[in-house]
Amino acid sequence: MNHPAPPASVRRPFPAELLSALKSLFGERVSIAEAVRANHGRDESPFDPQLPDAVVFARNTEDVQAVVRLCAQYDVPVIPYGNGSSLEGHLLAVQGGVSIDLSEMNRVLSINAEDLTVTVEPGISRKQLNEALRDTGLFFPIDPGADASIGGMTATRASGTNAVRYGTMRENVLGLCAVLADGRVIRTGTRARKSSAGYDLTRLFVGSEGTLGVITEITLRLYPQPEAVSAAICAFPSMESAVRAVIETIQIGVPIARVEFVDALAIRAINRHSNLTLREAPTLFFEFHGTAAGVQEQAELVQEMAAQNAGEGFEWATRPEDRSRLWNARHNAYFAMLQLKPGCRAVTTDVCVPISRLAECVVETEKDLKASSLPCPIVGHVGDGNFHVAMLIDPQRPEEFAEAERLNHRIVQRALRMAGTCTGEHGVGLHKIDFLVEEAGPVAIDTMRAIKHALDPRNLMNPGKIFSWAA
Amino acid sequence: MNHPAPPASVRRPFPAELLSALKSLFGERVSIAEAVRANHGRDESPFDPQLPDAVVFARNTEDVQAVVRLCAQYDVPVIPYGNGSSLEGHLLAVQGGVSIDLSEMNRVLSINAEDLTVTVEPGISRKQLNEALRDTGLFFPIDPGADASIGGMTATRASGTNAVRYGTMRENVLGLCAVLADGRVIRTGTRARKSSAGYDLTRLFVGSEGTLGVITEITLRLYPQPEAVSAAICAFPSMESAVRAVIETIQIGVPIARVEFVDALAIRAINRHSNLTLREAPTLFFEFHGTAAGVQEQAELVQEMAAQNAGEGFEWATRPEDRSRLWNARHNAYFAMLQLKPGCRAVTTDVCVPISRLAECVVETEKDLKASSLPCPIVGHVGDGNFHVAMLIDPQRPEEFAEAERLNHRIVQRALRMAGTCTGEHGVGLHKIDFLVEEAGPVAIDTMRAIKHALDPRNLMNPGKIFSWAA
Repeated sequence: MNHPAPPASVRRPFPAELLSALKSLFGERVSIAEAVRANHGRDESPFDPQLPDAVVFARNTEDVQAVVRLCAQYDVPVIPYGNGSSLEGHLLAVQGGVSIDLSEMNRVLSINAEDLTVTVEPGISRKQLNEALRDTGLFFPIDPGADASIGGMTATRASGTNAVRYGTMRENVLGLCAVLADGRVIRTGTRARKSSAGYDLTRLFVGSEGTLGVITEITLRLYPQPEAVSAAICAFPSMESAVRAVIETIQIGVPIARVEFVDALAIRAINRHSNLTLREAPTLFFEFHGTAAGVQEQAELVQEMAAQNAGEGFEWATRPEDRSRLWNARHNAYFAMLQLKPGCRAVTTDVCVPISRLAECVVETEKDLKASSLPCPIVGHVGDGNFHVAMLIDPQRPEEFAEAERLNHRIVQRALRMAGTCTGEHGVGLHKIDFLVEEAGPVAIDTMRAIKHALDPRNLMNPGKIFSWAA
Repeated sequence: MNHPAPPASVRRPFPAELLSALKSLFGERVSIAEAVRANHGRDESPFDPQLPDAVVFARNTEDVQAVVRLCAQYDVPVIPYGNGSSLEGHLLAVQGGVSIDLSEMNRVLSINAEDLTVTVEPGISRKQLNEALRDTGLFFPIDPGADASIGGMTATRASGTNAVRYGTMRENVLGLCAVLADGRVIRTGTRARKSSAGYDLTRLFVGSEGTLGVITEITLRLYPQPEAVSAAICAFPSMESAVRAVIETIQIGVPIARVEFVDALAIRAINRHSNLTLREAPTLFFEFHGTAAGVQEQAELVQEMAAQNAGEGFEWATRPEDRSRLWNARHNAYFAMLQLKPGCRAVTTDVCVPISRLAECVVETEKDLKASSLPCPIVGHVGDGNFHVAMLIDPQRPEEFAEAERLNHRIVQRALRMAGTCTGEHGVGLHKIDFLVEEAGPVAIDTMRAIKHALDPRNLMNPGKIFSWAA
């Protein structure tokens, strides 16, 4: 595997001819206004914005092709932009270039209710999609905290609270359409539920973070809305006891839909933000999907497992409004946590470990956090072994960012020692490039790089993300 | 994407120096005996054997590395061999080379019951694996008809009767270890249940059919053995009514574990082979997994859906021995069908379509088959939209093979028109190279080829499979 020399990792020239060509094609739909560029060169990460040279608002695959072809002609990078909710710097234009805003590509192209599939454009958000599905009796379960775009969720291999039952974007994208670095359109997968037809290009694009092409169409799996849903909440004396209850629940085969861990500090944040009065203790949020009888049976089994592991005050949320209130509070946890420290930004960790190591990983992490001056609430998708520490830093104080990064690195190294990963669902972006090297090792990184070099030989597609261009 | 010129698609030289080097390393574990080579240059496909020049029996990853490095030095191909149950010519040494027999690499390396994971060597068969898991309360659900090796199942992205509930190898391989074309060892994935850590190299190797490297270790997801299992069988007046019952079952969210379609001719074969007296009609086999109450509820719902769709004679197999007898009969269907025509071989189709199109696809296919002189029983994983026609041909009569291939092509083209795939679970191998071009199109094939060229620039890893080396 020979790799060409890397281009300079500085902003590349943005030729006036390219701007003219874009303007003549897109008119008002290309912008170089500072405010627009600033909005597209940032995300929810703690990094300072890095602005693209221009933003194009695409309306269809042909628009995307036109931008990619022009950029290829002038050796200018392309960065796809969905809803801007990335936590890892994916959207920053580190080498300049053109941000392709896909928010106008938000149509549902087809719903196939009998097949439980839907085909959408990448700009549609998960809430918009579920709104469009409401009358079909079906839903799309993947739910990151933010109302992310389906394109962004595909590109980062996102998941959320339902993954323990329904899987992640990895399991739920059946096929996609993307514009490659040379402007050609690739279609991967079919609407069949399974296939052994050659290399799994769908899965290669899922999680590729814009570095192999711009995704312009996605076919997703859907699920029947459950006949019955119930939710519950239970406090535990410790993280270990909570995790133990979850391991036992999963081992007896309860098909739990959601099980979320929230630590005492995060409960405090949620109480304040959502005007609740939950007990400030390590807490599990549960949700059960199934038939009426099935849900009741699941819930009884889980209540038993909780009781056997010192769970206290197991409470049902049987009314739909109580259930929504609880889960909205959980979904807003990120924003609630930010309010614990006015003006702060969050450095968010995202490790995921085998569930047998989760308690140990969190307990050791709590020790680190206690020794730090930063407020660091913890939430976790405990059924998956994935948890997030939100380290709240004052953006004016670089020493706080340094402290957060030091803690982050320790948490990642701990997770790797425990056979886990540095990122369960947020992706690598700019933030975890070094962590990925530690996790994957030189042969795997070199293999990723060889694929990138083969498919994007001039490093035009969202350059500078996931791994460095040259070893 | 520039691709170097293709090597000649003829057998490559097998230098005496390479044989000496292999012998000095492996002694008795390298064989050039005709019988051993013949056994490794064939599979269950209808193709004539093509023998490797030598067979090496590997015992660990280092052995595989040593063979791959030596072969790379002498520009000789490498073909990994598991249990020889491929249906598509994957194992034929079309350019000669060394077959690496992995059957001695059949250890369970670690079971992590709390995490529901197991790590195995590639040579272990699915039955051996489940035998090793028996006392853990866990099982591995993927079950192709043959007792295939886990390595082969990984390399072909196999599935089987449980996929409707548990997914395929795509969903159930968490990570793997492989020897690359240059002899380096790559590790992909972790034991964490989910990850967004860079390109999904695990999924790239799953389904790569030995063309990117030799898989030497696989980490799999396991599932709790269900508390209760029940099975049922029901005849239908037509394929359409059977499929309609299944669609309605899935749409109301019944988590059915298995649902298999068997046509009248295949039932006849099964009756003869397994000494059963099932009614010779289009039939569904069902299996339900869950709690005792859950299984009963599922089964009642399915019985209702069957009755609403003209199902007749819904019968329970409640005793474990009846259940095993039924499912063993289904698993042996391939061998039962071969006995319909003494001395025959089977050309097996493997299309998979969206379930809404399945009945139409099978009915149109039945018309084709009726017009043919070949006996062609049909079995299908109906919950997935995947079905197999076993076209029974006399190997001495080339016109029968030609007829089977003509029918096969028509079936594939029909499936592609219906947004399906040419292979649901058997892989491409030698047999479906042209079908894959029709399905995936030139951009996707070119992308697969670019990846292959980047990772195996001299085309040493199982050459001639999936796609042609040059466009």
